[in-house]
Amino acid sequence: MSATGNSTRAGRGAVPDIDDLAARILNGERRALARAITLVESGRADHREATTRLLDLLARENRQSLRIGLSGTPGVGKSTFIESFGMMLIGAGLKVAVLAVDPSSTRSGGSILGDKTRMEHLSREKNAFIRPSPSQTHLGGVGRRSREAVALCEAAGFDVVLIETVGVGQSETVVAEMSDLFLLLLAPAGGDELQGVKRGIMEMADIILVNKADGDLKPAATRTCADYAGALRLLRKRPQDPEGFPKALMVSAVAREGLAEAWAEMQALADWRRENGHWQRRRGEQARYWFAEDVRQALLARLETPWAQERMATLSEDVAEGRATPAAAARDMLLGLGVG
Amino acid sequence: MSATGNSTRAGRGAVPDIDDLAARILNGERRALARAITLVESGRADHREATTRLLDLLARENRQSLRIGLSGTPGVGKSTFIESFGMMLIGAGLKVAVLAVDPSSTRSGGSILGDKTRMEHLSREKNAFIRPSPSQTHLGGVGRRSREAVALCEAAGFDVVLIETVGVGQSETVVAEMSDLFLLLLAPAGGDELQGVKRGIMEMADIILVNKADGDLKPAATRTCADYAGALRLLRKRPQDPEGFPKALMVSAVAREGLAEAWAEMQALADWRRENGHWQRRRGEQARYWFAEDVRQALLARLETPWAQERMATLSEDVAEGRATPAAAARDMLLGLGVG
Repeated sequence: MSATGNSTRAGRGAVPDIDDLAARILNGERRALARAITLVESGRADHREATTRLLDLLARENRQSLRIGLSGTPGVGKSTFIESFGMMLIGAGLKVAVLAVDPSSTRSGGSILGDKTRMEHLSREKNAFIRPSPSQTHLGGVGRRSREAVALCEAAGFDVVLIETVGVGQSETVVAEMSDLFLLLLAPAGGDELQGVKRGIMEMADIILVNKADGDLKPAATRTCADYAGALRLLRKRPQDPEGFPKALMVSAVAREGLAEAWAEMQALADWRRENGHWQRRRGEQARYWFAEDVRQALLARLETPWAQERMATLSEDVAEGRATPAAAARDMLLGLGVG
Repeated sequence: MSATGNSTRAGRGAVPDIDDLAARILNGERRALARAITLVESGRADHREATTRLLDLLARENRQSLRIGLSGTPGVGKSTFIESFGMMLIGAGLKVAVLAVDPSSTRSGGSILGDKTRMEHLSREKNAFIRPSPSQTHLGGVGRRSREAVALCEAAGFDVVLIETVGVGQSETVVAEMSDLFLLLLAPAGGDELQGVKRGIMEMADIILVNKADGDLKPAATRTCADYAGALRLLRKRPQDPEGFPKALMVSAVAREGLAEAWAEMQALADWRRENGHWQRRRGEQARYWFAEDVRQALLARLETPWAQERMATLSEDVAEGRATPAAAARDMLLGLGVG
């Protein structure tokens, strides 16, 4: 099955016919979409050039999905939620794409997020598309590629693009920069565990979903949900929120309860933002962010060649052993790169 | 008084005679030290070249201070602590430099940290040197310049270099990367406020100092100190710590109590680390970090010219208005920079 191509193969592949690829993506062909994402993830200069042209062609159609960012720590039931929520959307006649941004894949070279085996039913649906996180050397690279994969999914006619990440470090910020709505999925907790969610992440959330609101955990979920609702009310009012948002809701991904209500809230929020100009303003700001990030990453990409990495390692050793100051070693490195 | 030169003046100044400047710094002349720090803070290419040579000359002497990082949120009594602690060290015959790393100065263009008026007695001592945070466009730039200012203070024969920062965002990490010891200064608090200190920052601390352990606040300080001592015991043991470290201590900067005991603990920890190889290992790692950071910042510096900034603004507008994709605008920018 070709839907999960990897960058190694793309790195060896010829540059595809971009006009043909664009037409097939606009026609909603999943195989073409998968091929294009592989192209986006490639580090090769000619692939980058082709990607830029492809994205430009596709942008002319100006198709827009609802981009939903979803964060939650491991164990909170993220895959089950995506499976249940995604199946509900499919049942409502919508096309759903699931992408993952996994900062841990920057180290291990692989990602468990977006693994299709975690979403058994969804992965078999013809109106669903699931893609794991690209593995890259830094989060910046993963972010840019994921953001471009979102644009490809939009062009391919997906109504909803779910972008999932785990609740660690900077990855929420990166995902929020490519989402229209940001959901935080949490598990029921003791009242004093509320502090465990970092304030910065709370402030990013549009809707907090307390999962596992079923069976024994229902009372705890009810209490946790009320606690978070209270905490959200204490946050500074944001211009992009209508009355009552951000809000906390209960769901059970396993029992498939509360999902329709959560979806109704997401739509209500998205509609309000569209009607009040916040939607386009936010997308404009995000585009600015990714433009600047693209430029920065391209400048830093000169450090990623085999020559540069080897030279950096040698000079780093000199610096650690006191044979050169950091400043002098940096000058030598930059001269070697032709910058200096 | 020339001790607080600014980068504007340096930006216009001629490149000084570096051999002479080095000799005067090694001779402990504060005016030469201030001039050199101004040179370090300059963005001019010829000044950078001169700085690199200066640092190289000074590094040959291999003088080492005790570099103490100090973090604490506003209101915790940081200036008063530095004033009292610094005066105690001066009284013990030591030379003390105080540098500031202030992330807020990256936006406002000015820093309140390191303001001499906050350290009235210390600033008048001939064996003290106080320098505010350089103002720069990004924390990376402030960090590198501060790190080089530390190296200059070491060469000038200061026994202790205090590097202060406020407890927000990434600045602690930056300061920890240039310190031998990291102190966290806290105020007495209610028992449930312990959560307010982020775990990541707790894990960086070698010694937690609970300030204001005087008068009415003494009981609260005692309880807070015990709470933090308990919290520190729960952290994972680090190889660079002898038995009993990290630890929490009480001080009163106003009443000048507990300062000698805190200093004794710092020396004990520093001695142990020197004897057990951790000191040099850490300095080596820090040098590696700053080398890599230097290279990255130099590559990104191409975006800081007036031409680049104007071009980025124009393209950013195109992107926000949907006239270009982020990828296409980035390609145009890079072509303009001659990178592409």
